[in-house]
Amino acid sequence: MEPTNMLEIKGSSWQQRYDATAIYTLRCRIADKPGMLGRLTSAIGGADANLGEIKLIELEPDYKIRDIAVLLKSQDELKALLENIRSLDGVEVLAVTDEILETHRRGSIRTVSRAKLRTLTDLRMVYTPGVASVCQKIEKEPGAARSYTTICDSVAIVTNGTAVLGLGDIGALAALPVMEGKASILAEFVNVSGVPILIEPKDCQTFVDTVIRIASGFGAIQLEDVAAPACFEIEEKLKQKLDMPIFHDDQHGTATIVLAAIINALAQTKKEAKSCSALVLGCGAAGIAVSKMLLEYGLGDIVVYDSKGPIYRGRTEHMNPYKHQLAQITNKNNQNVPLAAGFANKNIFIGLSRPNMVTKEMVSSMASNPIVLPLANPVGEITKEEACEAGAAVTADGRDINNALAYPGIFRGALDAHAREINMKMKLAAANEIARLAPEEALLPDILDKSVHRQVADAVAGAWST
Amino acid sequence: MEPTNMLEIKGSSWQQRYDATAIYTLRCRIADKPGMLGRLTSAIGGADANLGEIKLIELEPDYKIRDIAVLLKSQDELKALLENIRSLDGVEVLAVTDEILETHRRGSIRTVSRAKLRTLTDLRMVYTPGVASVCQKIEKEPGAARSYTTICDSVAIVTNGTAVLGLGDIGALAALPVMEGKASILAEFVNVSGVPILIEPKDCQTFVDTVIRIASGFGAIQLEDVAAPACFEIEEKLKQKLDMPIFHDDQHGTATIVLAAIINALAQTKKEAKSCSALVLGCGAAGIAVSKMLLEYGLGDIVVYDSKGPIYRGRTEHMNPYKHQLAQITNKNNQNVPLAAGFANKNIFIGLSRPNMVTKEMVSSMASNPIVLPLANPVGEITKEEACEAGAAVTADGRDINNALAYPGIFRGALDAHAREINMKMKLAAANEIARLAPEEALLPDILDKSVHRQVADAVAGAWST
Repeated sequence: MEPTNMLEIKGSSWQQRYDATAIYTLRCRIADKPGMLGRLTSAIGGADANLGEIKLIELEPDYKIRDIAVLLKSQDELKALLENIRSLDGVEVLAVTDEILETHRRGSIRTVSRAKLRTLTDLRMVYTPGVASVCQKIEKEPGAARSYTTICDSVAIVTNGTAVLGLGDIGALAALPVMEGKASILAEFVNVSGVPILIEPKDCQTFVDTVIRIASGFGAIQLEDVAAPACFEIEEKLKQKLDMPIFHDDQHGTATIVLAAIINALAQTKKEAKSCSALVLGCGAAGIAVSKMLLEYGLGDIVVYDSKGPIYRGRTEHMNPYKHQLAQITNKNNQNVPLAAGFANKNIFIGLSRPNMVTKEMVSSMASNPIVLPLANPVGEITKEEACEAGAAVTADGRDINNALAYPGIFRGALDAHAREINMKMKLAAANEIARLAPEEALLPDILDKSVHRQVADAVAGAWST
Repeated sequence: MEPTNMLEIKGSSWQQRYDATAIYTLRCRIADKPGMLGRLTSAIGGADANLGEIKLIELEPDYKIRDIAVLLKSQDELKALLENIRSLDGVEVLAVTDEILETHRRGSIRTVSRAKLRTLTDLRMVYTPGVASVCQKIEKEPGAARSYTTICDSVAIVTNGTAVLGLGDIGALAALPVMEGKASILAEFVNVSGVPILIEPKDCQTFVDTVIRIASGFGAIQLEDVAAPACFEIEEKLKQKLDMPIFHDDQHGTATIVLAAIINALAQTKKEAKSCSALVLGCGAAGIAVSKMLLEYGLGDIVVYDSKGPIYRGRTEHMNPYKHQLAQITNKNNQNVPLAAGFANKNIFIGLSRPNMVTKEMVSSMASNPIVLPLANPVGEITKEEACEAGAAVTADGRDINNALAYPGIFRGALDAHAREINMKMKLAAANEIARLAPEEALLPDILDKSVHRQVADAVAGAWST
């Protein structure tokens, strides 16, 4: 293994990371005998679960009741864990709480009043009769709505639920927890008021018409989890009709954060963008947007593959207007070879498709010190371990590269600058700033660091204004 | 004046109440000479302004800088006040801040996260990958959305801005501060998340279609400031299509709070509902809804007047289907006399029309100890002083009778009970409970008392469930 293989390992501790997607609290009645808690925690570890917080709930002479948090790789592992515990004498599981469901109980966001209503004067200022003077000011001068309503801070997060996470078309209602999660992130990281809007009909024009009718109450529109290629048509039409930022996060949030990671990966492997060529696997919303943005940044060439093979000029099967457009700007040599052969001599692989599509042999055939980003969720096109073993100099997956590092700052910046759109210049500014803020030898900065989001916002606002 | 005239006076201090609709903070540079502050406050009182809070901002040897809050009856009085102050030697007004505008700066509500995002585990529970399990649960079992999304607490507050306060059709954007004010009240009083939705097109069918498309993301729909008669058609169509509470506050919130006040006014004047007849002036959204609800409660008879005269069976001019329907259930004697004559022998007057429509002579012609509620905003059909002088036993105006005392508890109760509508039984339960909670000799309870809203909610939920 070459030394550059260590870059990502030093930069983050992904090899040790435990990808919990299920978290439970077990309320246990534990007999008060020496070594009981130790045996219980061993049983938990033995079931490949991780131990979280332990709380003492009740203290009795003969037993203790404790709440024990366990982190599991999937919900399916709970059963085996409970059987492991059941085999212990002196431990009884009284209740199991799904902590993820509890986090979402009553929703992950809520509306609060900025003004406290403690006196009748407060009430008369927030509501009638005082509010009439605010209405009249806005009637006379519509621009004042930006100063005296929530519009300066609000983003409608709009979905029809047709492409939710990796789950597909689960419908708008089932997508609501994702919209709320997005809004929760906007609220916590950048004080933006996200407002989930579910649109039940699935056809493009109805979706577009509905958004246009209700858009004036918001400062910006975030499109979310809308399937390709409908998402392209919807975004284009909304941009034509509305003089406000329209941003499809699955396209542009993803493209921004991928470019940020690529910028640092290029620096770490001492590559120049213009002399690199990339293979992008996946030609949906993310694949197309990532490819366009990497080309804008100056990447030498990109060949995009979908499930039928490479996008090239002259291809006729399984095309759409967006793939045709992509064929014009990618694949300089107009190559048409199967996926495995397509890897040969590429410097960068970006996977935005499905789990386990890529083999170690494919990675081995890439140019030296390749950058390998298998970003499919919840499981990448190849594991990072395998990518490293096959010679990847830098690798990161969909858990490392999270668009929640991009869209909060992008919206905050666009709202702050009163931008009428979120254009390529603003997205490039966001990607460059995110890349710049990463600690040395890491690909990306800490997503929990609010100052990162603030600096991204400032970069985006600056890019609009200049 | 009869002793019953004192009831309302004892119950509230309206005669002393100062109806400020404009509140300013004056930043004053005041020379440090004996008696200066006294002269300034006298100048403020002399301009018929009330003095609010006084803050010391800066202390210098020769002068002090103070922020002085002043309450005015209207914005127009500011100029005279400033001239009064300007005539004082040694006082300079450095800045004037409109406190109502400041209250609405950046809007009166915002979205917050219920979950804190302090760790990557938090983020992974609220957002991807954890949120996927919540989505899948709702996909399989749509009813779970009530447990694991904001729907259990959320109300869309929808307007097209066609009848905003007393301001008329000012458009949806200029109505936004009212929607936010409503949401602020819902948040503060009953922990309901109000979400303002502005619908730009003004035609009924487009409005209805738009609400239907986005309704699944909310627990209930509050229609607000939609002009009559469109509001009736919109409400009817939405009730037919959506299996959730639909509530037009200008109709039903107003009707509920007016009935609550009437219930206590009847008790205070020892009248029986069934032997009373009322004159309702105004046949818009509020007039029609109030009349229907009073009849449901058991009032003997009502004659409704619009600007053209009384509603009666056989009238053909300036009618609409809703007035025709009203003609069938009101005006038992089918009387058709001018407004002034219509007052003769009525026990109750309810004004829901325009300022200064009613004279003392009209009130004097009513039956003994009449109940007079001139509710037009911002100025009533007659002042309460004049109503009392003309013999009113109980009187209250639009500032005393505020539907913000009704709709928060009604929505909280409907959401808590998972009600599929807000029916007459629930509204009557709300009115009765509000009336019951009023202190002795007052018409209504304290709007700022959260326990009042909680008890109204419980009464409404109980009325749905039984």
